[in-house]
Amino acid sequence: MPKTIKKIGVLTSGGDSPGMNAAIRSVVRTCAYHNIGCVGIYRGYQGMIEGDFKEMGPRSVNNIVNKGGTILKSARSTEFRTPEGRIKAHKNLVDAGVDALVVIGGDGSFTGALLFNTEFDFPVIGIPGTIDNDIFGTSHTLGYDTALNTVVDVIDKIRDTASSHNRLFLIEVMGRDAGHIALNAGIGAGAEEILIPEEDLGLERLLDSLKKSKAAGKSSSIVVIAEGDKIGKSVFELKDYVESNFPEYDVRVSVLGHMQRGGSPSCFDRVLASRLGVKAVESLLEGQSNYMVGLLQDKITLTPLEQAIKGHTEIDLELLRVSDIMSI
Amino acid sequence: MPKTIKKIGVLTSGGDSPGMNAAIRSVVRTCAYHNIGCVGIYRGYQGMIEGDFKEMGPRSVNNIVNKGGTILKSARSTEFRTPEGRIKAHKNLVDAGVDALVVIGGDGSFTGALLFNTEFDFPVIGIPGTIDNDIFGTSHTLGYDTALNTVVDVIDKIRDTASSHNRLFLIEVMGRDAGHIALNAGIGAGAEEILIPEEDLGLERLLDSLKKSKAAGKSSSIVVIAEGDKIGKSVFELKDYVESNFPEYDVRVSVLGHMQRGGSPSCFDRVLASRLGVKAVESLLEGQSNYMVGLLQDKITLTPLEQAIKGHTEIDLELLRVSDIMSI
Amino acid sequence: MPKTIKKIGVLTSGGDSPGMNAAIRSVVRTCAYHNIGCVGIYRGYQGMIEGDFKEMGPRSVNNIVNKGGTILKSARSTEFRTPEGRIKAHKNLVDAGVDALVVIGGDGSFTGALLFNTEFDFPVIGIPGTIDNDIFGTSHTLGYDTALNTVVDVIDKIRDTASSHNRLFLIEVMGRDAGHIALNAGIGAGAEEILIPEEDLGLERLLDSLKKSKAAGKSSSIVVIAEGDKIGKSVFELKDYVESNFPEYDVRVSVLGHMQRGGSPSCFDRVLASRLGVKAVESLLEGQSNYMVGLLQDKITLTPLEQAIKGHTEIDLELLRVSDIMSI
Amino acid sequence: MPKTIKKIGVLTSGGDSPGMNAAIRSVVRTCAYHNIGCVGIYRGYQGMIEGDFKEMGPRSVNNIVNKGGTILKSARSTEFRTPEGRIKAHKNLVDAGVDALVVIGGDGSFTGALLFNTEFDFPVIGIPGTIDNDIFGTSHTLGYDTALNTVVDVIDKIRDTASSHNRLFLIEVMGRDAGHIALNAGIGAGAEEILIPEEDLGLERLLDSLKKSKAAGKSSSIVVIAEGDKIGKSVFELKDYVESNFPEYDVRVSVLGHMQRGGSPSCFDRVLASRLGVKAVESLLEGQSNYMVGLLQDKITLTPLEQAIKGHTEIDLELLRVSDIMSI
Repeated sequence: MPKTIKKIGVLTSGGDSPGMNAAIRSVVRTCAYHNIGCVGIYRGYQGMIEGDFKEMGPRSVNNIVNKGGTILKSARSTEFRTPEGRIKAHKNLVDAGVDALVVIGGDGSFTGALLFNTEFDFPVIGIPGTIDNDIFGTSHTLGYDTALNTVVDVIDKIRDTASSHNRLFLIEVMGRDAGHIALNAGIGAGAEEILIPEEDLGLERLLDSLKKSKAAGKSSSIVVIAEGDKIGKSVFELKDYVESNFPEYDVRVSVLGHMQRGGSPSCFDRVLASRLGVKAVESLLEGQSNYMVGLLQDKITLTPLEQAIKGHTEIDLELLRVSDIMSI
Repeated sequence: MPKTIKKIGVLTSGGDSPGMNAAIRSVVRTCAYHNIGCVGIYRGYQGMIEGDFKEMGPRSVNNIVNKGGTILKSARSTEFRTPEGRIKAHKNLVDAGVDALVVIGGDGSFTGALLFNTEFDFPVIGIPGTIDNDIFGTSHTLGYDTALNTVVDVIDKIRDTASSHNRLFLIEVMGRDAGHIALNAGIGAGAEEILIPEEDLGLERLLDSLKKSKAAGKSSSIVVIAEGDKIGKSVFELKDYVESNFPEYDVRVSVLGHMQRGGSPSCFDRVLASRLGVKAVESLLEGQSNYMVGLLQDKITLTPLEQAIKGHTEIDLELLRVSDIMSI
Repeated sequence: MPKTIKKIGVLTSGGDSPGMNAAIRSVVRTCAYHNIGCVGIYRGYQGMIEGDFKEMGPRSVNNIVNKGGTILKSARSTEFRTPEGRIKAHKNLVDAGVDALVVIGGDGSFTGALLFNTEFDFPVIGIPGTIDNDIFGTSHTLGYDTALNTVVDVIDKIRDTASSHNRLFLIEVMGRDAGHIALNAGIGAGAEEILIPEEDLGLERLLDSLKKSKAAGKSSSIVVIAEGDKIGKSVFELKDYVESNFPEYDVRVSVLGHMQRGGSPSCFDRVLASRLGVKAVESLLEGQSNYMVGLLQDKITLTPLEQAIKGHTEIDLELLRVSDIMSI
Repeated sequence: MPKTIKKIGVLTSGGDSPGMNAAIRSVVRTCAYHNIGCVGIYRGYQGMIEGDFKEMGPRSVNNIVNKGGTILKSARSTEFRTPEGRIKAHKNLVDAGVDALVVIGGDGSFTGALLFNTEFDFPVIGIPGTIDNDIFGTSHTLGYDTALNTVVDVIDKIRDTASSHNRLFLIEVMGRDAGHIALNAGIGAGAEEILIPEEDLGLERLLDSLKKSKAAGKSSSIVVIAEGDKIGKSVFELKDYVESNFPEYDVRVSVLGHMQRGGSPSCFDRVLASRLGVKAVESLLEGQSNYMVGLLQDKITLTPLEQAIKGHTEIDLELLRVSDIMSI
């Protein structure tokens, strides 16, 4: 029979994403709702090792539902990869009376949580927070929807300039291993071509597509490229390649970078964060552990952390066809 | 065996919503992709009766994916409710060589489409476009996601003032019959209480909630109220009620109104519109009729128009519990 | 010779406006820069009477430059209108070692500051913070530029709907005594007609303008109306009047309300707030008192508080002519 | 005595900027207001040479006041630099009945306009359109205010991530020869340090500033760098330099790029564009030529084009001191 849980620790780990604060708020308030304690752990696993804790009540999380970033901050911790580091961390939790952990982050953060559970039989639940949407067991990670809106807003602005000057823009968006942002924001922003890590469309196809686009009477073009696209050229190399093969184009590059991780979360991300936080805390209170809470088919579900880490998310290749049709 | 379709008409009808233009663009370009003609019908069924048509090609819909409203405009048509009106409309379509129809709108628009099909055996497919999200057969209607973001953005601004002055704000949002906007935007904006058409929470509960909120040390409060909330009082009557029972509160009212229908669509609405437009056209080409295309469990699906019209969407009452926990 | 100032108090009073937080930050950091103390006074003059003070250093104002509202909050104080109230307030300041005061607010706040100076020879400097831009001695009050952007954003959204449906919208914006917001946002949003407190254009002219607009082939119209417009009818009465005289119009009303006071300040307001805060503190340190800092002809200037209170701001009537030309 | 003007041509040239469309609209409608013709010239001087003209009336410019970019497009023209090119251009204007020209653009565009006037005694008026605010004779160029808001919005987003991870961000903004954007957006976004072309602050000072910032307890830092900053290192070289001297910092680079030129114009830019367009047309009608219309001390003024081209805008160095105080 599981030990009764009296105090839950919450931390954010890995890259920050919009909605993390809304998830922290939800965890803190759900604890208060069930009359159990809540401890905020600063700077992820590193703060766990250093005992950088703060007791949190409902008013500690006022006015953060709409803030980007994470008030608990995030950090890498090499020390947590050592048994000694984890022993220190565990001792700190025990000393602080913390019985269970909610970890908000991505794959790497969940791997740490799972290891921690294995070693100390410490109840853990994960909440998927990353803009890349590359976690198995949830249709949406926290921050993904916001990042899509940020990216289309920026591309809308760039298109103003592109169409005023008859230019071709190569726009690099985040996504080292997953093309979700590129594919969806590309369709949303009306990109002529989209390059993603999951499919090698080949350079020929890019040139063909640009030629077709010109022939169709389009005066400007936007190509959206995920960081980790399969072609394996940098966006600046692509620029040179296109210009040498297509000298009539005035090609410009824009690397959107870190702005994609910030900003006030969308309504979708705020509601999702609120729901996931409730489920995370209540799952721990029901004696569950080693699960990630997620959204599948519009319902809040539990996926074993092990599957969440090892599983592979698929992109919807039908979207590539939609993109093709849209860029006729 | 269905007649081969050579030209498709597209119209928008009912209240406009963000994403309608993206859907028009998708219908037009999918027609071009399949080498069939496309005719834009202006001002909904009224334009159908008046023959207010325009041939549309891929370049007719340049740079509209990110625009609110509808370039085809929308209008009410009392004439279309008469058999004579519909006969005129049918004659115009036949004269223009239009073989099938895509109708972007809500319940009322679909009722017209179904009637038109019954009378003239004319193939029709519906695309759900309304911010209210009150159509059976789709988890999201076009414009709903955008409206949620618009509402939380505005409430975020109002909260700046509310918390600077320790005020209570009663904010009326759209939703005559459905509380989707109120419930989700209310959670997203961190409302202390949410009043919706689906549940009569009672006035007592509102006062209790406000007292609890004050006791919990909150310095300001936001109550989000759907137009058609069950309590049956106007938002101005509610203000009087609260002030007379709770004189220490400085109560202000804000009726968000029509701004909720406008604005550049969110990435979600743009992608959904693109996908629904493709499916609508391709369903017609495959010989389907009398269906609404929609999104169910993240997949594009077909729902018989009759069900879409008669079916009743449920709100997720679990969200009320989440809202309760969040406003502790 | 003025007493050396060692500690400055800062408060916000009256309606909040975007940029107040940036001004507080500037006052606090300028004090730190000159190695003098700074005390934040909560809830305006009421907090001064209640001794609701907090010592503030440079890190107390981290991450607020971009936040709407005021972290010091604002409140009305009837007690400050009594000599007893002001004596209490003065005693609290003296007890806390506060030697001088920066008051961020509007006319009413400055009147209080001037009275306080007269009675206790206490150095005071005012910073104009109100969205209405109705203070003499500055071309821009804090929050005005942000409010203009908020209003045109909202009207842009409403225009999506207006032009989709061929509707006339009557939009009420803030401005009880001053038409600055209505006039500038009206031009910015492309309004067909603008009604302001400073000029009685008459109802005839409104109807003429709408007829002309219809005759010119415009399918929709936006009329922007300041709260305190000269015609003296409510926006709802205007709706009835227009509809009865112009039955072919489908007239809708939107009252923008409090959202106009909130939101993240524009770059202009943030920079202005930073400059005014520096000038306010350094003026006090130089022995000045009873002035308002302001922006005139792109330069930071001092205007005697008495003039700021009594003086009358003029609107640029040439803008009415520009509006007329633009709405041809 | 000047020839009576019956038709005015309008073009946009050089880099596009938000507000150009609002200025086009104003020129077109002011012509209509005075009952003279208006011709839109596409793709700047190149379109003038190719006769790429379109007659424009008040309805040609519907719904563009809020759009970024330029509907008349812009292009470079090497041919216009030749006497033959200009002769062709002149002939086209004469053939089209165009008597005078409004040129919306920057220095280079005005140089072309002046030359054209000298050679053909053709009346020209310039409207300053560029985000860089580097044109003598106006306190604000069209698009500058909008660009400032775009930049602070993006830096606000980046700060979410910076403060979640205790990082240092080097952010490059536009401004090859002028630091207006860097200086004002840097203050607006709360940058710790700002590097501009007008002042060589030296690398030592940057390091000092970062050390001071760390010592002051700041957990993250933003440095804003104009493209053409005096230090003469690229932003990537600066990253290496800071990291080698300050290994405890995790330094990230963001180059904002072309998004700064796009987007819906701010209210300020829309109103300024409307006023400048009226003044440009009415100045031509009054027989003026070779002037640039601009805003000086809140008034619309005329500056000889020659001065506008040769004059040098100064940045307000007092702002550097404000920035220093703010980053304490």
